[in-house]
Amino acid sequence: MDPGETCPAQYEAAMDVIGKKWTGLILKPLMEGPRRFTEISSYVPRLSDRLLSQRLQELEGKDIVERRVYDERPVRVEYVLTDKGRDLRGVLEAIVMWADRWETADTPATATATSRKGA
Amino acid sequence: MDPGETCPAQYEAAMDVIGKKWTGLILKPLMEGPRRFTEISSYVPRLSDRLLSQRLQELEGKDIVERRVYDERPVRVEYVLTDKGRDLRGVLEAIVMWADRWETADTPATATATSRKGA
Repeated sequence: MDPGETCPAQYEAAMDVIGKKWTGLILKPLMEGPRRFTEISSYVPRLSDRLLSQRLQELEGKDIVERRVYDERPVRVEYVLTDKGRDLRGVLEAIVMWADRWETADTPATATATSRKGA
Repeated sequence: MDPGETCPAQYEAAMDVIGKKWTGLILKPLMEGPRRFTEISSYVPRLSDRLLSQRLQELEGKDIVERRVYDERPVRVEYVLTDKGRDLRGVLEAIVMWADRWETADTPATATATSRKGA
């Protein structure tokens, strides 16, 4: 944590990987092993297929996820973490542990309004 | 890393703290102890005072940073991490270590264009 130890652009680039909405959740099942699109999708049910597809493409572009196509009938497609992607485990765990300790989830505005009304 | 172990909103809220541009750099000097505005500013020279002020206010609002005003002449103001803020050390270190290992800093578009021209 020395000044200048890490290039700011590196930190921002790391954030550009893990900071995007849904990315943390998408990476979770992939940490366990190769997953098909529908398997990831069922793990993150609120995420549309279109957006999941977009996120996976972005993660491929950043060398976090590899898309493997198996020449079978029907064709089988699996998503697998690269070494760089698997190495994110410690980062994600640190974030999850911190979030658990401090319960940083903001109460949605509507829920707050309702509880205020009830108080 | 079990499915459903952490609420997605918690992860997103954590990202909303550490994922914002400059926040990682602002937190670094504060990890060492209380700092005045100008001390943080000199650590992140490319950041405007206006934006630094805004980030510090956001971090105060999220209970990461505390603003202490000492009744002296001239008045002394210091920024100090809260317990919740200090507890981010592990998260930031994990990110920095990952970024160092994988050199995720993207080459700026202009530099790429130049190197292509030279090739």
